[in-house]
Amino acid sequence: MLSCTLLVANSDHSDSACFACILLSHGKEGQICGTDGVIPITTLTTHFRGDQCKSLLGKPKLFFIQKDEGVQADSEAANSPLEADTDPGNRIPVEADFLFVYATVPGYVSWRHPEKGTWFIQALCRVLNQYWNQLEIQHILTRVNNQVATKPGNKKQIPSVESRLTKDLYFNTFHTVNPSQSNIIGKQGGKLIFF
Amino acid sequence: MLSCTLLVANSDHSDSACFACILLSHGKEGQICGTDGVIPITTLTTHFRGDQCKSLLGKPKLFFIQKDEGVQADSEAANSPLEADTDPGNRIPVEADFLFVYATVPGYVSWRHPEKGTWFIQALCRVLNQYWNQLEIQHILTRVNNQVATKPGNKKQIPSVESRLTKDLYFNTFHTVNPSQSNIIGKQGGKLIFF
Repeated sequence: MLSCTLLVANSDHSDSACFACILLSHGKEGQICGTDGVIPITTLTTHFRGDQCKSLLGKPKLFFIQKDEGVQADSEAANSPLEADTDPGNRIPVEADFLFVYATVPGYVSWRHPEKGTWFIQALCRVLNQYWNQLEIQHILTRVNNQVATKPGNKKQIPSVESRLTKDLYFNTFHTVNPSQSNIIGKQGGKLIFF
Repeated sequence: MLSCTLLVANSDHSDSACFACILLSHGKEGQICGTDGVIPITTLTTHFRGDQCKSLLGKPKLFFIQKDEGVQADSEAANSPLEADTDPGNRIPVEADFLFVYATVPGYVSWRHPEKGTWFIQALCRVLNQYWNQLEIQHILTRVNNQVATKPGNKKQIPSVESRLTKDLYFNTFHTVNPSQSNIIGKQGGKLIFF
């Protein structure tokens, strides 16, 4: 998992307007299980920071994280002070423009239907299919929260969305990228990478 | 601080559509300093959960947290499984409808001008003044992120917005509260409590 992540992070994303990564696995306390062991999520995501993945600098980096048991303590947070990016034309914080979407809040269980899959991924797919070209990503995810939170039954779950985005993000093609005129990022182009 | 929080959490908020709390203090590792000592932030916010503050059940609970040094590890997360709320008419997760807005991401410093105040609170006030009755809260906070992230100079900072909201939140009066027809919460009424 780590080598694949590094491969993707070190690729050239110049022709993409956005990066999205969806992780479905097990893991506790801010960690996630892969075939290469248990890895802190921040170890994976750090490689996409503005100073380490230049071709995604200033672009939204989305991480959707579904883990079977959601005990996440964020204990692997970086300890170094924030530094300006090395590119003088893009002096923005290296931790900016990330969006982390967790299936559940720290310390709580997430639920899974044995055949249909997890509540979170089910809702995410449903809401994306319905609203992907109408709503901004955070409003899409508010509706995912709503669908998961209001699922009938005694088992309860609420996803958590952690946004460091600096611009609104739309997946449709009706918005253009022009930071001087707009606070909106639209879809310029993109590619899907599976690993 | 704890007794004041309890007093507010135990008050009747039936005539309010939303609760907002702004904390400006010091504190590390998920804690905040008050005159009564250093308290885990979750100890303060837990009292506003759906099962403990019934009159705010299903309503947005906003916490804006500015700390001088933002080492936050979220280590005080609850360990009990999510339970359905005790009110059968509102069976939603007890951790739902919270919005936590941190001045900076875990492990990073937040910056303060000696006269003008902190970058985060300055930007929050500016953006709220400009957009409070036009944009949804998460889009307001994306603009706060943008203003803090793009502040000129070598010192850098990015706020972090953690949303468990299940509906869009607008502060203007043009939207109505009607969960069956809309995914929007509007302003029905409100009161400011200072402590």
